[in-house]
Amino acid sequence: MKALIYDGRLEYTSRYPAPEMGEGEALIKVRYAGICATDIEITRGYMGFKGVPGHEFSGVIEDASLKGLIGERVTGEINLSCGSCYYCDRGMRTHCANRSVLGIFKRDGAFAEYLTLPVENLHALPDSISDEEGVFVEPLAAAFEILDQIDIGRDKNVCVLGDGRLGILVAEVLSLTGCVLIAAGHSREKLSILEARGIKTAPGTEGLKKEYDIVVDCTGRGEGLREALKLVRPRGTIVLKTTVADRTGADLNAVVIDEITLIGSRCGPFKPAIRALAEKAVDVEPLVSRVFPVEEGVEAFEFAKRKGVIKVLLKVS
Amino acid sequence: MKALIYDGRLEYTSRYPAPEMGEGEALIKVRYAGICATDIEITRGYMGFKGVPGHEFSGVIEDASLKGLIGERVTGEINLSCGSCYYCDRGMRTHCANRSVLGIFKRDGAFAEYLTLPVENLHALPDSISDEEGVFVEPLAAAFEILDQIDIGRDKNVCVLGDGRLGILVAEVLSLTGCVLIAAGHSREKLSILEARGIKTAPGTEGLKKEYDIVVDCTGRGEGLREALKLVRPRGTIVLKTTVADRTGADLNAVVIDEITLIGSRCGPFKPAIRALAEKAVDVEPLVSRVFPVEEGVEAFEFAKRKGVIKVLLKVS
Repeated sequence: MKALIYDGRLEYTSRYPAPEMGEGEALIKVRYAGICATDIEITRGYMGFKGVPGHEFSGVIEDASLKGLIGERVTGEINLSCGSCYYCDRGMRTHCANRSVLGIFKRDGAFAEYLTLPVENLHALPDSISDEEGVFVEPLAAAFEILDQIDIGRDKNVCVLGDGRLGILVAEVLSLTGCVLIAAGHSREKLSILEARGIKTAPGTEGLKKEYDIVVDCTGRGEGLREALKLVRPRGTIVLKTTVADRTGADLNAVVIDEITLIGSRCGPFKPAIRALAEKAVDVEPLVSRVFPVEEGVEAFEFAKRKGVIKVLLKVS
Repeated sequence: MKALIYDGRLEYTSRYPAPEMGEGEALIKVRYAGICATDIEITRGYMGFKGVPGHEFSGVIEDASLKGLIGERVTGEINLSCGSCYYCDRGMRTHCANRSVLGIFKRDGAFAEYLTLPVENLHALPDSISDEEGVFVEPLAAAFEILDQIDIGRDKNVCVLGDGRLGILVAEVLSLTGCVLIAAGHSREKLSILEARGIKTAPGTEGLKKEYDIVVDCTGRGEGLREALKLVRPRGTIVLKTTVADRTGADLNAVVIDEITLIGSRCGPFKPAIRALAEKAVDVEPLVSRVFPVEEGVEAFEFAKRKGVIKVLLKVS
């Protein structure tokens, strides 16, 4: 099958073996897949991953033991859990001690014609969500994770740092809570997407005060935490939404003195993400910078790294 | 009056001017004061403080506008708040934007014959608490702060890192919750104090697993956070209880991937601390390594820095 593979070097092949469907799994023909910052990190050695990357996708079930599922348009949760460890027992399947992660850890991913996932990981895409939009369910779920972790409402003063893919999605999701929100970033163009949705923005953090109840760091840069510490009020909360190569230099003594809560946030719930997309409560269309055929995946990665680019999709089949 | 002063160098003088009692304040004759890690940091330049250090004390009210208070044996909360800023309005007086802090920031402290504090900062010491024990109310309150911040009960697996002054107090306070507790440190002698109170201990963290719901870092060292990250389970909580000079090197990406909550913890509530001491629920007597007269304060500081020493008290009057 067609696939983009990483083995110390990213390359396209038309002869990668199709995955075999395990018990309880479905075989999915991938339609679109999104290139995420994590994918780019993987091509720099992150997680030591080798194989087919890609974990944001939409596709159609081509085979499953439950034959009624065939033909269903789906996206899928990316953590494959054992179902029997301490974390699975407690409903924290994304933290399963024995997990593999689609396109990230021990499991081939979505930059290929076919992928397999346990049926329990799959979510049907309603007709009102296009194939292209379906790709955004996974990163949007990651944004919704914040709402599962902390209490955000109209009484909260919230600042989102970073106007990249994730920053924009996080700002859109947080705006649904009615909180007093500002999104800070450096790209006029990207911030204008949020402004079009009625979200207040700031060109960088220089003019902002140390007065935010909640600061969400989506910068993907080490400075993000340092800036967040300058903006969060005593007893406030900083949400760390991205892993970064180097986060030294942040003064964690401020965390102690101001009794800050710092909370890490990763994968999130698919259901509210699908609902938000279906109801057009969140608009992801302006985020698609360009669509490449999977055959041009290597070029697509290079394009995705360019300044100003938001989301790059691969059309797989 | 007698005082220990720091002005780039720590020295004792018998001729320091006695403080003047402001409106709403009381003049307190200090009996005992404790040397804390923060005091030692101050003599290394921390907070740029100059004047009389010391913030853990017991004493007797010698003057106050409410004459009925005179003669009362007290200790006091160390944050002097304005009563009208954003934080004071919301009951977070220890985070007052305009605060001074006894012996730490813009306010002379307890290593002197007299200190002044607003009457509202004072707490009477019941007869069952000795003058020496009264010194421990403030650090014990800091340990109780953790219970105000996070939910700890019998269902929680908790590890306290560090067997110094604060680590021991924190372990004693957390043990009152009935949680499954282990205290890890490197001093056999210090850990034996906790063992005598029925608290399980470990010589270092090497033998411990990544299974703790809550890890409290009281090490006062940069490695503390790194060790805590190795021990806390996914979605667990790390409490940072001490400021340290250098905390670089901790991999905060683990915070994101494992969705850890990291919470800073500083000053705490005096009432439960006084109650615990009064009821002998916490035993601080074994923590007193030595008592020096205030005249020998400089030597006392040197002694307090020695390995194996837990708490050094100054007898002031």
